[in-house]
Amino acid sequence: MHKTKQTKRTIQFKRRRSGVRTRAVAEKKRPVDYGKARGDDKLKIIVLGGNEEVGRNMTVLEYGRDLIIIDLGLQFPEEDMPGIDYIIPNISCLKGKQQKIRGIFITHGHYDHIGAIPHLMADLGNPTIYSSDLTLAMIAKRQEDYKNGTNLKLQSVKTSDVIKAGCFTVRFFGVSHNIPTSMGLIIDTPVGKIVHTGDFKLDLNETGDSPTEIDKIAALGKQNVLALLSDSTNAPQPGHQMSESEIQHNLDDIIKNASGRVIMGTFASLLGRVQQIILAAEKFHKKVVIDGYSMKTNVEIARALGYLKIKKDTLISIKDTHRYPKNKILIMCTGAQGEDRAVLMRIANKEHKDLKVEPGDTIVFSSSVVPGNERSVQRLKDSLYREGAEVIHYQMMDVHAGGHAKGEDLKFLINLIKPRYFIPVEGNHSFLRIHAKIAASAGINPKNILVADNGQIMEFTNHSGVLTDKKVVSDYVFVDGLGVGDVSNIVLRDRQMMAADGMIVVIATIRTRTGQLVQNPDLISRGFIYMKENKKLVEETRNKVKSILKDYNPKTSANDAYIKDKIRNEIGRFLFQKTERRPMVLPVIIEV
Amino acid sequence: MHKTKQTKRTIQFKRRRSGVRTRAVAEKKRPVDYGKARGDDKLKIIVLGGNEEVGRNMTVLEYGRDLIIIDLGLQFPEEDMPGIDYIIPNISCLKGKQQKIRGIFITHGHYDHIGAIPHLMADLGNPTIYSSDLTLAMIAKRQEDYKNGTNLKLQSVKTSDVIKAGCFTVRFFGVSHNIPTSMGLIIDTPVGKIVHTGDFKLDLNETGDSPTEIDKIAALGKQNVLALLSDSTNAPQPGHQMSESEIQHNLDDIIKNASGRVIMGTFASLLGRVQQIILAAEKFHKKVVIDGYSMKTNVEIARALGYLKIKKDTLISIKDTHRYPKNKILIMCTGAQGEDRAVLMRIANKEHKDLKVEPGDTIVFSSSVVPGNERSVQRLKDSLYREGAEVIHYQMMDVHAGGHAKGEDLKFLINLIKPRYFIPVEGNHSFLRIHAKIAASAGINPKNILVADNGQIMEFTNHSGVLTDKKVVSDYVFVDGLGVGDVSNIVLRDRQMMAADGMIVVIATIRTRTGQLVQNPDLISRGFIYMKENKKLVEETRNKVKSILKDYNPKTSANDAYIKDKIRNEIGRFLFQKTERRPMVLPVIIEV
Repeated sequence: MHKTKQTKRTIQFKRRRSGVRTRAVAEKKRPVDYGKARGDDKLKIIVLGGNEEVGRNMTVLEYGRDLIIIDLGLQFPEEDMPGIDYIIPNISCLKGKQQKIRGIFITHGHYDHIGAIPHLMADLGNPTIYSSDLTLAMIAKRQEDYKNGTNLKLQSVKTSDVIKAGCFTVRFFGVSHNIPTSMGLIIDTPVGKIVHTGDFKLDLNETGDSPTEIDKIAALGKQNVLALLSDSTNAPQPGHQMSESEIQHNLDDIIKNASGRVIMGTFASLLGRVQQIILAAEKFHKKVVIDGYSMKTNVEIARALGYLKIKKDTLISIKDTHRYPKNKILIMCTGAQGEDRAVLMRIANKEHKDLKVEPGDTIVFSSSVVPGNERSVQRLKDSLYREGAEVIHYQMMDVHAGGHAKGEDLKFLINLIKPRYFIPVEGNHSFLRIHAKIAASAGINPKNILVADNGQIMEFTNHSGVLTDKKVVSDYVFVDGLGVGDVSNIVLRDRQMMAADGMIVVIATIRTRTGQLVQNPDLISRGFIYMKENKKLVEETRNKVKSILKDYNPKTSANDAYIKDKIRNEIGRFLFQKTERRPMVLPVIIEV
Repeated sequence: MHKTKQTKRTIQFKRRRSGVRTRAVAEKKRPVDYGKARGDDKLKIIVLGGNEEVGRNMTVLEYGRDLIIIDLGLQFPEEDMPGIDYIIPNISCLKGKQQKIRGIFITHGHYDHIGAIPHLMADLGNPTIYSSDLTLAMIAKRQEDYKNGTNLKLQSVKTSDVIKAGCFTVRFFGVSHNIPTSMGLIIDTPVGKIVHTGDFKLDLNETGDSPTEIDKIAALGKQNVLALLSDSTNAPQPGHQMSESEIQHNLDDIIKNASGRVIMGTFASLLGRVQQIILAAEKFHKKVVIDGYSMKTNVEIARALGYLKIKKDTLISIKDTHRYPKNKILIMCTGAQGEDRAVLMRIANKEHKDLKVEPGDTIVFSSSVVPGNERSVQRLKDSLYREGAEVIHYQMMDVHAGGHAKGEDLKFLINLIKPRYFIPVEGNHSFLRIHAKIAASAGINPKNILVADNGQIMEFTNHSGVLTDKKVVSDYVFVDGLGVGDVSNIVLRDRQMMAADGMIVVIATIRTRTGQLVQNPDLISRGFIYMKENKKLVEETRNKVKSILKDYNPKTSANDAYIKDKIRNEIGRFLFQKTERRPMVLPVIIEV
């Protein structure tokens, strides 16, 4: 069904595009004052992804013939989406509007903000992407990893820059968020000023990461902000987010006191943390090995651009570790989430070429566990303990600070900016609701708090904002291998069904003329029962098939759908009775 | 492979059993003093389940011709075990020893301690099960729910009782653990005194739950305990576990202040919590509705036995709620873990016959989230927020206290009991290691701390204890529908494979004499791609199959395994090239 829609949309899209082109040429003749509201035009704000989940962030601002996009992220799949690599926003509402897109503004380099770029840029007509040099370098690197990647148009900005994008004027403010050069956006639109925080926390300490530009934020309080879109990721957590500087002394202690090697597992993209760990290692004269493809890549990029300060002799190759005493070695690597192919897992499974755990090693999990990964992380820890390592994780000691503002921080921000309208973004529906309550407690009129679903259109004039009940398509688009959007809900349901109880193929070869079975029906099953050990059930099932087919005559039957349905239903029922399992039954009738 | 082993074991088992019977008859003639160590006999302690996971707890004590079992629990499956209902201990090492089993001692009524009973009692020869009246009632109720359940021999004990079980003498001490009548065991064996805590926390307050009998525990300090087996579930958490009495005032506040109905989601088996909630409801003159099959059953059982105090007019039927003001209604139900068919999920999905969420409802999640359930719980909360309910969960307010002792509690217990040997049990390997460190810090000689894997045999004489390197089989036994142990690793691997990338059946009908294809090869795929939308790929695959079969002649080929392998490999490779997915390829050759 999903697929069918997709095809129809593509057809519409092609028709419309030529129409737009004609109009664009015509319009060249009459210059327009983009700075003012024109007639009935309203500013539309549509969150296409990230308002019913954590991930696949994408927001659209549209006014008249201009449109800008904020972020283009991916989401990691849920456990009931087997085989899916990730989920990206559905951009079908932008088809036919490519000519209007004046730019894509990326707030920072995490996958939930940049991850859909390789999959969607071609369909978006490849507009210019604006972001910091570091974020753009990470985008470019990721693009390289995709075959057939579009040649991106990237324009680097500093937080002091001003970008004109059609009727929109975009300014930036730096925010602290575990990865350098994260920024929020201040967007002047014909109806008023819109502020989008991006992911942020209110960390004013500079510890490897860029601090939040609090002066710019404070100044917004006097600028009559029409609407604030703010990060809800940690809204359910009361209090204040920890500062990275608060965990520095714990990291220092661990690194200083380790009697053997220290192995630090973290996210490759937590570049702020990476800087802290390197600073601590240098303080105690330890050499640092960086391991893991994404970790190495990110460190190289950030170092080349000056966002990571590393002394000349600090980094060594993994092959040179034997030249130093064990307590002078720190290995920083990926895999603290228990990811299958990441470094920590390979070490634990003894599949790492150059590294194995030794008694005396101290292994630190310096990132919180992403929901859904708890069990793999537990298995990983068990393996590491088994090898005799000391394992330290964030529940035992503060070795992780989150990247998102918590309840009190969020309230503080709203109090500073004093927007007329408040739009919680980036989080599950319940996070947005909790954030809405926080906004109300910060004095925002509850009528002016718009909790939008993905795809739900918000409309603003310079005196009012409305959450309409109009919705554009915003359902999941699955990326699986090379396919984008070709895994439909049907395919997914089949996968779930086969995962739960397996499947059985029933093959009956019959004579077209007589309907007689040419040979015994073949049964092939996978994931259901081990057939060699269940000969009795197999034989009973075969007999059941034979009795179903006894009265079948292909010449007199209208089509074979009827007999297939009958096999599917009766064999399904029979097997459930015998086993209380519901394998998928696939009947195949071969007429010869 | 698993299956093959199983069959072999069954055969051995039958042979041995008759042998044992003969011996048992012979032995009747000479009475034996069970109280003293005989010759070379050693006490064997084997943890069959629960030492590499949380769940499927089962421990065996064996001495000479006597054997007792502690607990018989199930484990819930991991996310990479699709379709599995649960995992139970592997009891193949007990086959042939049924005649030696002098009793099964169950510490409390949670599924990870009683859940394997319906599946394993027949194979164990149906020995007497000893436990509290409440636990036995829960076991009996569960047994009823299984067709073909064995008729169990249940013997109720109080914590003041003494049970002789062959050479073992078993005494009990009450422990606090979220469900009444939980107990630890003090077992006099011919080589010394063994203490098993069961699941416990050191809660000395009586709040709906039975308090820990700390006097009995303290007395053990002078009784020269040989070995202590202690609950490691919360060993990784530093500090002390919260007391249930500490959360009572939060529950009181919520229940008192709710302006509409209160809906409390919790575990049906957290009977201590259930009592607290009922007490609070009564304090504020609210009526209580109990909903959910397991919740109702447990409340009935516990109330009938006097373990739940409920005033006569407190409970009302769900159909009578309209007779009371909304703020006088409290609904207690199952589903706080986001379980598919439990009450809260049915309410959220609007599938509940009598209940729907209304704005003004306060919904409380009064249990912590079991690892692996985070995402379903999140989806559940999102749906409830969407209906306009207030949602309160344990991260926002202390509405949950865990049932297990934390680091400092565990240390306290070891200091009280002062055992010669310490055996951490019940937890993942890393939990046991952390618990071992706690024991060392409490003064236990590290050489006397035995961290055993599942199945690893520990041997004790009255002067020494050894963790041997001998192991009995202790791998997972899967329960799936009616089948116990018939889902092997092969079946599971097939399910995982089909879940990830689906499967494709390739059917070629050929003439036996000539090897000619009778008709175009048939392709059937599920969970791979939606074939109707991918005609080109289907056509290319079909052509590929034809070209593979071109030179095949069934008359000259030794068998069809070769050509099937060829189709499997080449089609697999071809499809990966085209899609970067690896569906399972199932070739079927039909000769006519």
